[in-house]
Amino acid sequence: MRTYLDCIPCFFKQALEAARIAGASKLGQKRILDELAKVFPKFPLASSPPEMGKTIYDLVKRMTKKSDPYAELKAKSNRLALNIYDKLKNKVDNSRSRLLMAVELAIAGNIIDYGVKNSLNVDMELSKILDEENRSIKKESKAIFDYKSFKDALNKSNMILYLADNAGETVFDRILIEEIKRIDENKNIIYAVKEKPVINDALIKDALICGISNMAKVISSGSDAPGTVLSLCSKSFLDLYNKADMVISKGQGNFEALSGSRRAVFFLFMAKCPVIAKDVGCEIGDIILSYYPEKIIEK
Amino acid sequence: MRTYLDCIPCFFKQALEAARIAGASKLGQKRILDELAKVFPKFPLASSPPEMGKTIYDLVKRMTKKSDPYAELKAKSNRLALNIYDKLKNKVDNSRSRLLMAVELAIAGNIIDYGVKNSLNVDMELSKILDEENRSIKKESKAIFDYKSFKDALNKSNMILYLADNAGETVFDRILIEEIKRIDENKNIIYAVKEKPVINDALIKDALICGISNMAKVISSGSDAPGTVLSLCSKSFLDLYNKADMVISKGQGNFEALSGSRRAVFFLFMAKCPVIAKDVGCEIGDIILSYYPEKIIEK
Repeated sequence: MRTYLDCIPCFFKQALEAARIAGASKLGQKRILDELAKVFPKFPLASSPPEMGKTIYDLVKRMTKKSDPYAELKAKSNRLALNIYDKLKNKVDNSRSRLLMAVELAIAGNIIDYGVKNSLNVDMELSKILDEENRSIKKESKAIFDYKSFKDALNKSNMILYLADNAGETVFDRILIEEIKRIDENKNIIYAVKEKPVINDALIKDALICGISNMAKVISSGSDAPGTVLSLCSKSFLDLYNKADMVISKGQGNFEALSGSRRAVFFLFMAKCPVIAKDVGCEIGDIILSYYPEKIIEK
Repeated sequence: MRTYLDCIPCFFKQALEAARIAGASKLGQKRILDELAKVFPKFPLASSPPEMGKTIYDLVKRMTKKSDPYAELKAKSNRLALNIYDKLKNKVDNSRSRLLMAVELAIAGNIIDYGVKNSLNVDMELSKILDEENRSIKKESKAIFDYKSFKDALNKSNMILYLADNAGETVFDRILIEEIKRIDENKNIIYAVKEKPVINDALIKDALICGISNMAKVISSGSDAPGTVLSLCSKSFLDLYNKADMVISKGQGNFEALSGSRRAVFFLFMAKCPVIAKDVGCEIGDIILSYYPEKIIEK
């Protein structure tokens, strides 16, 4: 997805939020915004928002001299999410369709902003998302929900590349990966996280803490943008990306980075901003399981 | 009110919106944002947001070569508001307290964003704001509502300076001014509008079209910021501002510009953004009739 003009005010909002989380003084926060003002006019709008995102978070890290401003938040997210692992597992055990529930929980993990809250009342948060009666994501929220294509692709795929989003959310991903392995334990699942700290995105250590490595091979994509920006990824990741039978991509950042990609990708996320909602053709707050089939490149 | 760091992303949002309303091309919109990026780092945060607002709207006018980008919207607002004048008057006639209803309608006029809509279903819009049963603004929305002080001040005041906000809203102001005159026809009311076009703020011609001049003397404040920034006002306006027995100030922009003023002012507006809500100590969407008594200046 290209960057829209409406993303520009939001870049300043994100920079300010990150500066605050990094503990910058008011003067420091202002300096970061002033610096962003110098940088963004040169940024080509044909690039995706996570590319500018990388610039913003690099700037915050450099100017606050904090290599991982969100470290504490990520640790807390992992802890809170691990605490409810059994509850999540229970939901899957008691559901009519284990895989569907696991997919929905994986998306719910992207919705619940447990990183920034002091405590996690998961039942309350999940009940907002899940319909209490059938414990499924409310129909009206599922604007785009290509579950059949997802299930079909899963059945046909052996090598599956799973692109992580945030720390903590990783526990929800583990639930889905465990269900995929339950269908066929020989499936080869690769779980790709970011290379270096950027916002609250999961790194290798978050994936390990959350217990992903028992079920999937954990790798870094090589990118430290808040989205899998292919031009920033390592050669070895790109080989896997092109070779994989199926790519499951979590979160808005990965959608922004990869929606223009040539290869087929399943995007699982909630539309959190008006720009994304317009681009996808849905409303803010809608749940998206969207299949972007392989693009035919005209020669 | 000083400018908060959170106002900076919003400045970009406002510039983009104004650029679009002025009919700028996408490239033109981007250029306006780039230009704002050059300007805002020099802007002192001790100044009030409408001072930066002036810079933004001047920039849009200059770069789009449109001296009054909101002219059509303002004309439509006046027309739509005038069409419902009889209905508003009827509400006052049928209310238990004419003055209270007129005050509430004057605030409602600030809430209803009739400028940007294609049609005005005033009953629907007003019923959102007014409680259907007693036709009064819902109690829970009245976070700060110093009506008693307002009424007391009104009784004691002869010369009243009324600071206008938007075109169209002027019709709602007329309703309140007519009630004030009904209490005492000898009260001297001065209705001050902006000097030059800025956003959809009312100018002298808007006040005349909306029929204010039958009840009040219409003047310009001399300021063309989207708020009565005293340092930009004319000498003759400042004399009136200092001399008036009572100042009634409409809208958020005037609050931002004057909340730090020495003299006593009654502010009537809805808190429309998180920065204002935090500054005032209320929630977004709250209705404010706030009395800022004369400040004691330490010598």
